[in-house]
Amino acid sequence: MRKIGALIFPGFELLDLFGPMEMFGLLPEQFELELIAETTGAVVSGQTLAAHATHDLNATPDFDILFVPGGRGTRAEVHNTKLLDWIRRASDQAEFTLSVCTGSALLARSGVLNGRQATTNKLAFDWVAQQGPKVDWVHSARWVEDGPFITSSGVSAGMDMALGAIALMHGDETAEKVAGWGEYIWNKDRHDDPFAK
Amino acid sequence: MRKIGALIFPGFELLDLFGPMEMFGLLPEQFELELIAETTGAVVSGQTLAAHATHDLNATPDFDILFVPGGRGTRAEVHNTKLLDWIRRASDQAEFTLSVCTGSALLARSGVLNGRQATTNKLAFDWVAQQGPKVDWVHSARWVEDGPFITSSGVSAGMDMALGAIALMHGDETAEKVAGWGEYIWNKDRHDDPFAK
Repeated sequence: MRKIGALIFPGFELLDLFGPMEMFGLLPEQFELELIAETTGAVVSGQTLAAHATHDLNATPDFDILFVPGGRGTRAEVHNTKLLDWIRRASDQAEFTLSVCTGSALLARSGVLNGRQATTNKLAFDWVAQQGPKVDWVHSARWVEDGPFITSSGVSAGMDMALGAIALMHGDETAEKVAGWGEYIWNKDRHDDPFAK
Repeated sequence: MRKIGALIFPGFELLDLFGPMEMFGLLPEQFELELIAETTGAVVSGQTLAAHATHDLNATPDFDILFVPGGRGTRAEVHNTKLLDWIRRASDQAEFTLSVCTGSALLARSGVLNGRQATTNKLAFDWVAQQGPKVDWVHSARWVEDGPFITSSGVSAGMDMALGAIALMHGDETAEKVAGWGEYIWNKDRHDDPFAK
């Protein structure tokens, strides 16, 4: 059983978060999910609907997997040192650190991606790359795995990445089963990125 | 501008709701999103994470689009006459009524799908069909359009349906643009259902 801590902030992208959470959530024996934010309670997404955080940043980050979504809110959060400090501590003690879309801008700013390969979404690629000049940014990839870091392209690529992470931890067959339960057509080749063209 | 009312309940399926909400939410000039539940505040999904409802069933249902996700919670809600009454009223005055996965069980039970074609997910197909003996259930379809009713197959099919609904309301080009922004590989042929085999 792995505990996933998903960090949210005002202006997070709905599907960045809930696409992967659905995939992990379909394996309740394997993954426990928690939402963390600077303050607990309703956190409003970039699409106006709100998720409900049950943990704040004062809780000791004891997650096996740190998960960071993107969204327009990252534009402000790259300057939030309290959040970046928490990301660094949570990532340091986690087995895996995952991000979707511009979530990798927050990982990059916290320094944990230095010397690592990572990706992000296409529409904000240059801005994200500027947040981590020491990161080896990969432009064409549905998602990128480098040691404990798994980063995905924009929004929907997070679901493909989540299934990739499940495959890494529990085997391909389990990931295929989860995709089937969710009637999800898994784009399982992480090097095949139709949006890079 | 169309107002979408998404009805949630304990045990709703995360991606049933937030996949489509992402797609509609990427067009904030065209769609306004609201979450409704029996009581406002945190509503816990089948995957344990909670969404935050801002309206309860006492509010007059004045939505242009009624949206109903599925999830294991539907097993209890098919017996919730207060909820079913609200669905009937909201659907009667809406321009479109959409459901994902077992959300169509709630629509069927409320009676609004009688005489209509509709679909649902594969794993609960027989149970859902029993909730609406007068509904013309379609087994193989990514989603089904019948007049104001647009119903989708399991979980992830909701995203394809949402893009289909956007295409219906704003044209194919707009739907393709939204898919591109979300780096989503749209399965746009609603008759091509790989999970029906």
